Amino acid sequence: MNIVIVGLGVIGGSFAMALNKVGYKDVYGVDVDEKTLKKAETLGIIKAGCTSGEKFFEKADLIILSIYPKLVARFIEKNRDNFKKGSIITDATGIKGMFIKDIMNILPEEIDFVFGHPMAGREKKGIDFATDKVFQNANYIITPIERNKEKNIKVVENLAREIGFKIVRRITPEFHDEMIGFTSQLPHAMAVALINSDEENRDTGSFIGDSYRDLTRIANINEELWSELFLGNKNNLLKAINNFELELDLIKKAIYDDDKEKLMEFFRKSTIRREKL
Amino acid sequence: MNIVIVGLGVIGGSFAMALNKVGYKDVYGVDVDEKTLKKAETLGIIKAGCTSGEKFFEKADLIILSIYPKLVARFIEKNRDNFKKGSIITDATGIKGMFIKDIMNILPEEIDFVFGHPMAGREKKGIDFATDKVFQNANYIITPIERNKEKNIKVVENLAREIGFKIVRRITPEFHDEMIGFTSQLPHAMAVALINSDEENRDTGSFIGDSYRDLTRIANINEELWSELFLGNKNNLLKAINNFELELDLIKKAIYDDDKEKLMEFFRKSTIRREKL
Repeated sequence: MNIVIVGLGVIGGSFAMALNKVGYKDVYGVDVDEKTLKKAETLGIIKAGCTSGEKFFEKADLIILSIYPKLVARFIEKNRDNFKKGSIITDATGIKGMFIKDIMNILPEEIDFVFGHPMAGREKKGIDFATDKVFQNANYIITPIERNKEKNIKVVENLAREIGFKIVRRITPEFHDEMIGFTSQLPHAMAVALINSDEENRDTGSFIGDSYRDLTRIANINEELWSELFLGNKNNLLKAINNFELELDLIKKAIYDDDKEKLMEFFRKSTIRREKL
Repeated sequence: MNIVIVGLGVIGGSFAMALNKVGYKDVYGVDVDEKTLKKAETLGIIKAGCTSGEKFFEKADLIILSIYPKLVARFIEKNRDNFKKGSIITDATGIKGMFIKDIMNILPEEIDFVFGHPMAGREKKGIDFATDKVFQNANYIITPIERNKEKNIKVVENLAREIGFKIVRRITPEFHDEMIGFTSQLPHAMAVALINSDEENRDTGSFIGDSYRDLTRIANINEELWSELFLGNKNNLLKAINNFELELDLIKKAIYDDDKEKLMEFFRKSTIRREKL
């Protein structure tokens, strides 16, 4: 199978590494950055690289897009005559609903786009931070659409399992966006708000333990990507933030009321839920 | 130096391991639980253990208390005639202001209590989760009071550095509680509220990445201890929660307004702060 990865950043680079590790040798890379291509070639994780992929796309059975969400439509418009008939495109985009609608309006009929979301990222960007390790035992979500051929969905699912993902699930784009608003976007909003709510000049670093470190790790955030993701999933994210604030207000009220029993009840609930995870 | 550790749970057990590792051999343990004492003896991290420590305290140069905050006063009342004159007591309590006032009301004159807070814990309780590793490169706070002898403060500071702590700082009890409300208690409140705000029956575990895992780790929480800590630092914690909610509301407003520039501004600020940490 000929595979082309478009965008060899932290996610695309990780795909290349993981594919190489499990034996895929016909993997090609496309990236706007020459240094990135050079590095991928030196690492031996792509067979060849190019800043524009026409010659690769003609022979590609599978194209993996790991570029900014808003660049995907432009990519398809630009390359609509370069794709091999019957080939598969898949992506790594963290939002699905509106995104899929936009893409389906312009997708050539002979191309099958299997929308996917590998739930494994890192807070840093670029191929220097790529690693196949983040995929091990992680979750992979596929949001099938009516037009998808079953065999093509299976290709992506099997590949995901091969490169280390543990749970590969199919859900609707709508449910995906609802869940991701809660499990991924809300934590990012919380981390940013936590560190931004610090007062200046307190030398906070001397007074932190693992909890602050853990909760702010993702406050180191790719602003271009995440502002797109937040705004592309606006209603779900606002709902998740509101539900979270309601819970936090219950804790606040219990503290205010010196209600130890209530606090312990919240803590027991959260402990049970965390242990189940 | 004869050292007695009172409470061989996750923190006390870690102290015993860390002291043993750097060569302290005259370390004794007191715990209400026989199994815990047995385990500490089998591990060779204490010289002897006992459920009541009278015979140890008479010879102790330093007593390290790692018991629930509210048990500390009771411990001192009960043992006031057992302590060696001129000996040092230190603790691991996560709140200082009110706590210190309570203790100072009952502390025998010939005992020097150097109040400390090793900022290294784990979400689990009990000696089975003790490890000296959590102390490596962690922060240690000491909140001296007027009555403390300089040489005794130094004993605790040096010991903290010997067992692996990197930054050992002296601050006032009031500043300690303000900082800890923000860096430790607020993250715990956030983690609990996050996981408790999940809706039932969504099989959330299949849709999480590292961010949700990281942000909810400490939602597995010792309810007895943390409800005490929260209520013992009420005003600082409420202030920290309010400041955090104000920041989160700014993010919410930017999402609501589709204000990408504003979101990117928040993300750039959080990224710079996180990288500085």
